[in-house]
Amino acid sequence: MAYELYYWDGLQGRGEFVRLALEEAQAPYVDIAREDDGTGDMLSIMDSKTDPYPPFAPPFLKDGDLIVPHVANILLYLGPKLGLAPLDDSRFVAHGLQLTIADMVTEVHDTHHPLSNDLYYEEQKDAAKVRATEFIDHRIPKFMRYFERVLKLNPHGDGHLVGDALTYVDLSMFQLIDGLFYAFPRATKRFGEHYPRLAALHDAVMARPNIAAYLASDRRLSHNESCIFRHYPELDKAAH
Amino acid sequence: MAYELYYWDGLQGRGEFVRLALEEAQAPYVDIAREDDGTGDMLSIMDSKTDPYPPFAPPFLKDGDLIVPHVANILLYLGPKLGLAPLDDSRFVAHGLQLTIADMVTEVHDTHHPLSNDLYYEEQKDAAKVRATEFIDHRIPKFMRYFERVLKLNPHGDGHLVGDALTYVDLSMFQLIDGLFYAFPRATKRFGEHYPRLAALHDAVMARPNIAAYLASDRRLSHNESCIFRHYPELDKAAH
Repeated sequence: MAYELYYWDGLQGRGEFVRLALEEAQAPYVDIAREDDGTGDMLSIMDSKTDPYPPFAPPFLKDGDLIVPHVANILLYLGPKLGLAPLDDSRFVAHGLQLTIADMVTEVHDTHHPLSNDLYYEEQKDAAKVRATEFIDHRIPKFMRYFERVLKLNPHGDGHLVGDALTYVDLSMFQLIDGLFYAFPRATKRFGEHYPRLAALHDAVMARPNIAAYLASDRRLSHNESCIFRHYPELDKAAH
Repeated sequence: MAYELYYWDGLQGRGEFVRLALEEAQAPYVDIAREDDGTGDMLSIMDSKTDPYPPFAPPFLKDGDLIVPHVANILLYLGPKLGLAPLDDSRFVAHGLQLTIADMVTEVHDTHHPLSNDLYYEEQKDAAKVRATEFIDHRIPKFMRYFERVLKLNPHGDGHLVGDALTYVDLSMFQLIDGLFYAFPRATKRFGEHYPRLAALHDAVMARPNIAAYLASDRRLSHNESCIFRHYPELDKAAH
């Protein structure tokens, strides 16, 4: 039976980290958002007053009766089934890196919504400007220096973040970098100079046949300003 | 060999979610922060230029050679070993709930640091006031109504969040609620009326013999303003 991925319609968002793993592995899946009344189906699962263990928020994956919420949890569940995760104890290393990626994704989101999700961006623009500046000056370097170091220290070589083969963490790192390139073109202009291994990983993932085919397909939505990675020129600036 | 828990010294913080599981299970562990030069040891693991897979941030757990970072990942790892997690596929349900708790903990932190961790609270007090008001009016109800519904819908009864026995998720929910009581006494004054099952779970966890003994010991640090849960009266207000 095909996996069912539930997420908001019309944006890459957090769902994209799951889509990339499913696409790389050529796993059968239904992107419920793109189906008729998909969003309605998603909301009724979330709002259920009868079914046990409803998910708090999308994305979530449905595999038969099991509902698995949260990107990192979905990838933890799918990883071994799709051949995209280590099977030994280093699966906890992979999951830890994925959770660090998730933390950075939340910080990207908060650059444009630092005060509240219930307020419009325009209502929190001044705070967003401060937070985005801090993000560019302090957080991008802190996270990216760390991930670059993880690549450098990988005993199996710097082609992958964990072990000697592609994992879901590499795919997610591509998406994180790709989103930063879109949202902050000025801040990431010299990304490849500062983080050569990460830039090479980004390009290597993008060139994988299944990923390249996916990116060229209409299943890959464009980056846009409904997403986590939003290009607001006033929040972008050259990095130090 | 005893587990080694690495975290900042002098605060409950994210480390406390791990301590509660170790204490409930009476597992042997060393709280490295409380050892001589514990913080130095922690930082040299994080900053290593030679060891593979360094952690990005505390808390992390060391079990022999394996380093497991992130609270939810540590509890995923420890859960089955400590008898505090389901062993079937509902372990992904437990982990999903733990990740939702982690998201709320991040939002609690951001009530006093909405713009940047590199700025003092005093430098972002106006933004903090807006974010804390939004948190009290919108986010506490959204998260807590959800968790109350999870308890209500648990087919094994409303005494536990997952399944028919205590899990690490119940322990973490105690800590989350306890932290909110400390940080926002006015906003949570009627917590028990709004969320009776959650309030009962909080009290039941607190009354467990191993937890009660731990809370009365000097191993349990007090809540304080170095922590995630900070009591700044100007950020607190009565809930609707």
